[in-house]
Formats: sequence, C-alpha cells, structure tokens
Amino acid sequence: MATVDLNADMGESYGPWKMGNDDTLLDIVTSANIACGFHAGDPNIMLSTMKMAAEKDVGIGAHPGFHDIEGFGRNRLSIPIGTLQNQVRYQVGAALGMARAAGTMVRHIKLHGAMSNMASEDAEMAYALYDAALSVAPEATIMVLAATAHQEAAEKLGCKWVGEIFADRAYNDDATLVDRRLPGAVIHDAAIAGPRIADMVEAGAIITQSGKHIPTKIDTICLHADTPEAIEIAKSTRQALRDRGIRLEKFSV
Amino acid sequence: MATVDLNADMGESYGPWKMGNDDTLLDIVTSANIACGFHAGDPNIMLSTMKMAAEKDVGIGAHPGFHDIEGFGRNRLSIPIGTLQNQVRYQVGAALGMARAAGTMVRHIKLHGAMSNMASEDAEMAYALYDAALSVAPEATIMVLAATAHQEAAEKLGCKWVGEIFADRAYNDDATLVDRRLPGAVIHDAAIAGPRIADMVEAGAIITQSGKHIPTKIDTICLHADTPEAIEIAKSTRQALRDRGIRLEKFSV
Amino acid sequence: MATVDLNADMGESYGPWKMGNDDTLLDIVTSANIACGFHAGDPNIMLSTMKMAAEKDVGIGAHPGFHDIEGFGRNRLSIPIGTLQNQVRYQVGAALGMARAAGTMVRHIKLHGAMSNMASEDAEMAYALYDAALSVAPEATIMVLAATAHQEAAEKLGCKWVGEIFADRAYNDDATLVDRRLPGAVIHDAAIAGPRIADMVEAGAIITQSGKHIPTKIDTICLHADTPEAIEIAKSTRQALRDRGIRLEKFSV
Amino acid sequence: MATVDLNADMGESYGPWKMGNDDTLLDIVTSANIACGFHAGDPNIMLSTMKMAAEKDVGIGAHPGFHDIEGFGRNRLSIPIGTLQNQVRYQVGAALGMARAAGTMVRHIKLHGAMSNMASEDAEMAYALYDAALSVAPEATIMVLAATAHQEAAEKLGCKWVGEIFADRAYNDDATLVDRRLPGAVIHDAAIAGPRIADMVEAGAIITQSGKHIPTKIDTICLHADTPEAIEIAKSTRQALRDRGIRLEKFSV
Repeated sequence: MATVDLNADMGESYGPWKMGNDDTLLDIVTSANIACGFHAGDPNIMLSTMKMAAEKDVGIGAHPGFHDIEGFGRNRLSIPIGTLQNQVRYQVGAALGMARAAGTMVRHIKLHGAMSNMASEDAEMAYALYDAALSVAPEATIMVLAATAHQEAAEKLGCKWVGEIFADRAYNDDATLVDRRLPGAVIHDAAIAGPRIADMVEAGAIITQSGKHIPTKIDTICLHADTPEAIEIAKSTRQALRDRGIRLEKFSV
Repeated sequence: MATVDLNADMGESYGPWKMGNDDTLLDIVTSANIACGFHAGDPNIMLSTMKMAAEKDVGIGAHPGFHDIEGFGRNRLSIPIGTLQNQVRYQVGAALGMARAAGTMVRHIKLHGAMSNMASEDAEMAYALYDAALSVAPEATIMVLAATAHQEAAEKLGCKWVGEIFADRAYNDDATLVDRRLPGAVIHDAAIAGPRIADMVEAGAIITQSGKHIPTKIDTICLHADTPEAIEIAKSTRQALRDRGIRLEKFSV
Repeated sequence: MATVDLNADMGESYGPWKMGNDDTLLDIVTSANIACGFHAGDPNIMLSTMKMAAEKDVGIGAHPGFHDIEGFGRNRLSIPIGTLQNQVRYQVGAALGMARAAGTMVRHIKLHGAMSNMASEDAEMAYALYDAALSVAPEATIMVLAATAHQEAAEKLGCKWVGEIFADRAYNDDATLVDRRLPGAVIHDAAIAGPRIADMVEAGAIITQSGKHIPTKIDTICLHADTPEAIEIAKSTRQALRDRGIRLEKFSV
Repeated sequence: MATVDLNADMGESYGPWKMGNDDTLLDIVTSANIACGFHAGDPNIMLSTMKMAAEKDVGIGAHPGFHDIEGFGRNRLSIPIGTLQNQVRYQVGAALGMARAAGTMVRHIKLHGAMSNMASEDAEMAYALYDAALSVAPEATIMVLAATAHQEAAEKLGCKWVGEIFADRAYNDDATLVDRRLPGAVIHDAAIAGPRIADMVEAGAIITQSGKHIPTKIDTICLHADTPEAIEIAKSTRQALRDRGIRLEKFSV
C-alpha cells in the first residue's frame, strides 16, 4: 500500500504578530517545518509549535532560512557560503534544543524561501548547506525539492532524504516550477489540486503542465495554509489521497 | 592536591567587530564561556572560538544573555520569565549544535551580564533559567556565583554545579561584590590579585574586604582579558596558584 | 464650541506581519501615532501609513518606543538615559524624514508602551525624553498622559503639549489607571464608553472609578482598534462626542 | 587655485564594539560619511561622531547602507527597490535628526558598501536610491563614484553632485576599480598614493593602471583609516595635495 507524507511550514508568527493557521494545519499534515528564528519564529513560538505538533503526533522539522526577518527570508542574499553554513548550524542547533525541551525531536531539515530556491539551482550550495545541517543533526532526514539540485546534493552526500512536490504549483517540463507570474502557475481550485497530486503519487512522477511524466521519488507533499483557499486545497489533497487508498503518514527512510 | 579551574568569557566579537584577546586567554584558562549570539557572538565566531578552545583542550561553556546586542547584555530587562527561559533554551541549543559541528561538546552553562546579576539576587529567577538550560542540556554543569542566589537555585534543582569567584573584584561581608563605584572594588594590581585568590582557594572561603572568611565551594576563578591590565591579573592569578601547588585544570563534578 | 482630538496608535505591522485595522481607524480618528521601527513598523509601513493618514487629513505623530521588536516595546528596560535619548532622537528623525517623503509632516510626539509607562511615573525621565525629541523636532507638540509625570515634564520644558485620556480604561483617584487585573479596569461596553468620555470632556476633568473629578486639560482621547470590540468603542466614543455637540478635529495648540 | 575635498567613512563602531580611528581621521579629512545604524553605527555613535565632526568643521554626510549589521553592509542583497528606497529614506531622516540634535546639518549623501557597488553598475538603481534620499533631504549633495552609473543617475536627476575617486585603489581603463584580488589593485605605498592622487586632481582625470586618462569631475578623494597603513596613505595624500598647491576644503557645489 502506497504511503505519503504531508508537510507544511509552521511557527511563522513573530513576537506579537500572528501568521498562519497552525492549529488547523496540524490536523491535516503529518510533518511540520518549524521556522528557527532567522526569517520568522522566536523561541516562544518555536517551543509552543513543537509542543502542539508533538501532541498531534506530527513529525518535526527544522526550517532554517536567511537572517532576514523583515523580508521573511524571501530575498536572495549573497552571503559567503561559510557564514551561511554556520547560520544553518546555529538554527538547527537551536531547533534541536527547543525540541528536546519540548520532549520531542527533530526528524527532518528543510531549507526555507530564497535560501531553498537558490540551493535548488546550485548543487554546490545545497551540498554545503546540507552538510552543515548534518554536522549538527547527523541523524536527520533532508527534505529536498524533488528532481532539483537539492536532490543531486543529497545523493552526493549519501544522506537520508525524502523528495517533495507542491500541492498548488504547476511544473515545467524540466521539473522546475512554472513562474508565478504565468497563467496556471498556482493551482487555486481545490477540486483540481487533490486529484492532480494523487495522480502524481500513483504515477511516481511529477506530471508537468504539458502532461509530461518525470519519474521521481515522491515522499511528501507541501501544503500551505496562509489563505482560506490554501486550506481548502490542503484538505482536498488530503481527501483525494485517502480516496485513492494512499496512506498518509510521517515519512520513513 | 587542590585543583581549581580558571574561566573567562570569550567569543564576544560580533560580525566585523573584534573584542577581547581570546588567543591569549586560551593559553591561560581551563574553561571558556562562549557568547551565544544574543548579547555578543555570531555563528561564525561561535564556531571558530569553540574550535580554538577544543584544540587547546579548554572546556567549553554556553554563555547565554539578554537579547540586547547594542547593550552587550548589560542592561537590566524586565522580560516575562517564560520568554527568558525560552531564550535561554534557544541559545543553549544553538551552542550545543555549534559545539557538535566543531567536534566538541558543551560542558557547562554560565549566565551573562545583567541576566546573571539579576538571577544572583533572585533565586526563583535563577531556578527558572537553570531549569530551562538543563531542559536542553541535562548533562551540563551550572557555573554559579558562589554563595549567591545562583547557588541556592542550583542546590534546590539538585543539578551539577561549580562555584565561581572573581579574580579582580572585592567582596562585601554578605558575599556580594563591592559596588564598582567604591574605592578598592576592582583589583588593579596584579601583585595583589594572584595571592589574594590563592588565599581564598586554600581557605575554601571568600575573603571579604574586611577580612571576614565566608566558607564556600570555590571551583573556578573568573578572569578577564579586555585590558592589558586584566591580562596581567589573569597571568598573575595563574602563577600564584601554581606557586602554591594548586593544580589548574578543567573543573570536574 | 468644545473640540477634542481622537488619536490611535498605527503603523504597527512589521515586515510580512499585519497588525491592527489602520484603514478603519483612519476614518474615526483625527490624529495617528505612527510606530517608528523600534518596537513595530518598518520603513515601508511608516511611509504607507503616513500617506494614508495624510490623504484622510489625519494628523501625524511620531510614536517612539523601546528597541524591542519581539516584546513590542512593552517590556520595561533599564537603558542608560543618554542612550534612550539618542534612540528617541533617531526615531523622531526617521519619522520626520518619512513624513517629508510622504509629502506631509510630523505634528506631534507620543511615547509608546513601557517607555511611556515608565516616564509617566518619572518626571525626570519624561523630561529627558521630551527634551531629546524636541531637539530633533522643536516645532512638534508633545502628547502627554494627562495629570501624570508626563505633564509635569512638559510644563517644566515649557513646550507645546496636549493632554490625553483613554477611552477604554478606568482611573484611580490619583489619576493613574486602574490595574488591568482588577475588575472594571478595562471598559468593554461601547454603550458605556462613549458617554463616559463625553462626560469627562464636558467636565474638563478625569472622572475616576469612584466618581471623583480631577480637573485636567483634555485635548485628545486615545482609542484602540486591535479587537472588534475596540472598534465598537472607538465608534461609540466618536458618536457620543458628536451627539453632545463636541467637535472632533486635530488638536491645535 | 584648485581645491579638493577629502572624505572618509566614520561612525562605524557599534554598541560596545569600536572600529576605526575617527579622532585621527577628523584631523585629516574635510567631509565625513556617517553610518546610519543599518550596517554600522547606532544612535549614540551617530550623535557623538557628528558632534566631533562639527567641532572640527568637517562636513557631515549620511552614509546609508543595506540592513545587514553582521555583514557590515558588504553582502549584495536582492531587496525590492521600493523597500530599499524606504530604507534609505529612513536612514537619511534619522541622520538629519541626529545632525539637528548635534547642532549641525547633513550636507551630503553617499551610499555604502554593496549598495553603492550595485548602484555603481546599475543607473536605474542609483537613480531610485538618490531620488529617495533627496525626497527626505532635497538640499543635500550626492557623492557619486566618478564616471560610474552613479554619475549617470545624478546627472539624470539634475541634482547637486560631486565626483569621488579612491586614494588607494587602482583603476581599469573603463573607470571601474581593479579587482581586489589582482596585483596592484590596492595601493599600499604611501609614497606612491599621494602623488598619484595629486596627478589625477591636476589632470582632472582618472589615471588608470595602464596610464590612460579618463577626464572626469574630481571633487573629493576617499580615504580610509582602518589600518596603520591606511592612515599613512591618508596623511601622504593630504600632504601631496598641499605640496602641489591644491587647497583642501569641504566641497562646494
């Protein structure tokens, strides 16, 4: 029986400011990527989010990003790679500590935002950052954007990794995401999103906008929850997968 | 044969700005308190300082402080205790991670600056912060200001702890430090500092300005290195202790 | 004909995080206190909020606070007064610059959060901070908590000032606010809030919980908008004042 | 009689960390570029540096940079241009405020570090940033890297501007700086630096490494002071210019 993991970014509130619907999402996903305080999150939010996730038996991941709170880690920054590695180490260390304090543990690591985007186009950068993360958490699994430089780097490292696709984004024929500014790039229709993802999981392939199949390891589906629409897509994806008899559970490697 | 540890704060540079003489100090001390990025230090500096310390077989401690870079952690801040606990957890977790990446480990935890001062007057606060630190690093030893509320909290927690006195500060009869603004509060004369500390270690007591002996566990001596004078005092202390046949080595608990 | 100003804190979003209902509030108030980036707000938010306020002919104020984003300026910090003065100067200067870029100007200055609370109990601190603010914006009016140390400081400075009372907070007989933890401290009932304030404006006095009248200069009423209830109270206050024939307009000094 | 201005970056200390030799430099230069708190400097340092500069009759400039303290504004960041404009406005406003509090004024604006480098290659970016700066300080003069996109932008804006060359950097034949990694890129010899700059000022042209003359407006020479060598070069440049009968004074436009 096929199984797949559902993941989402969480713990993205900051100080007095709220973001997201972590409560709702934690009833939908099986893995949570927790912001580590550099692009969002703070020590209070990290701990409370990890506790909530652990209570709902949702797997916990560290979600390091650029040190850019005002830009939410979405700006591309040219930081020396050695400095970036240490910033990743620091964030992963902090996440491990908070998880221990919460009585749980960090199972996986996923890069955030512009750091992830840049690394998905640059296997050397991905390798350096994953290597840094694993120097702090050698037992963790890396969550890679399937069929990108992320995957190439993880394979070269020989580390444990899982492949991820997006529930709400269309793919080009080279497995990259369709530019957000183009029509159809973002799936807004929950009735389409769910079956589309179920098709991909069953096929073991990314199905591109043109219908092309790119065989790849699909272990986890990335969901969002920042809009009411996103939550509908998340729920639809969950339902469509179950309807096809695909079991939803934390990834295992 | 009596033994004692010598400790100093380190890794207090920040970004492009240098502070201290860590190179020199690492040849004098047996334990190093490494800033964790909240009042000083950054991920690059944490890693390189820990590596240097490990190479010289100097014990490594996490040195968490208030989140106040511009104030160097020296301003008294009234932050809710739960938030402070999480900030301590975060910093200790980061330190553990960086130490692992550096191929070493965190042996002890010492509070910094105003956070330490406030906790030395408030056993409840000290208890909460130590408890938080140990929730992340249960195997670590707490370094307490001997005979203060720090010690009371550590004893109540039943954790491993070592008692610390200052090489260059005069004591009042209640074991508090003489106010910096009063004459004689800070020892500037290396010829006096070394023998004074050796006397205290031999006596197993804080010897106050008035000559009173306050028996207490003295496991480690705090040295400074921010001025040429401070380095002289550090060297004098080291020499005076050796001359009396006191062995200098990392504390053991 | 009596007139009074209605003010509210605004521009308290930060980076990607939203806070408040500035759009709605700008149709209710006559003066807006704009966060200056130290406890909330960022350069984008400052500019856009000032532009919106100017378009609606709402008076603009600089609202400096402690440098404590994660604590929203609500923690009491013991910072050397000279440093605080410079932090106030910096924030007021930034606000003046943003206002000029927005084609408008800063009319008033109001301290935020814990900085305001501490200064309301300490006339020396209030004097130092107002003096600093006026060294950058000598033409601005200081908005003081009526009948507190704020007012004492403004009178001693001989600067332009206006007195402020709260629409939703009960007063003790010494003109301080009833502790939030006590029953009745916060007015939740819009039907009560409006007439209560109109009574005070007509009486030219703070009317305390016990019914005592403390004559004071009431130039402006502080409104909130962080909850649906707060917006109801803001609207009720506005309506009650107009019903009594009190004109609502930007304060003049 | 020819005149030229000498400028240097200043006020680059931060909180407890010292950087540079502002005291010494203020006896050499005629204009000072004051960091505005985003890449270095803090409100205390801004005010004290401006006061020192004013006392020595040195002209004051605002020196805005990327919001990147740990990277000292030297990392290239891809921030939306509208956000960058507002960050520049904020910094310039803060500088104007601090200058007013110091009893002086901001005469010029010069971009810092990577922000300056990026703008020197991108006239649109330079235009947007200068336009933003002038929206806050319309009376200020822009200091441009002579013969780069900076100058193109300033000319298009029709604003007051002065052209700057470096005392210690070699030039390529297209007026760009020789890459730091190449031999001869940085002038280390004070005996060479001074006469070289005097030649350029007399020629009214950048003289490149190959000897080519690129005629350009040279109003100000950028000096450094971060090393003993740099101070020697600064002094040598000053002396060589005076020896040739070139008067050193604050630029006028």
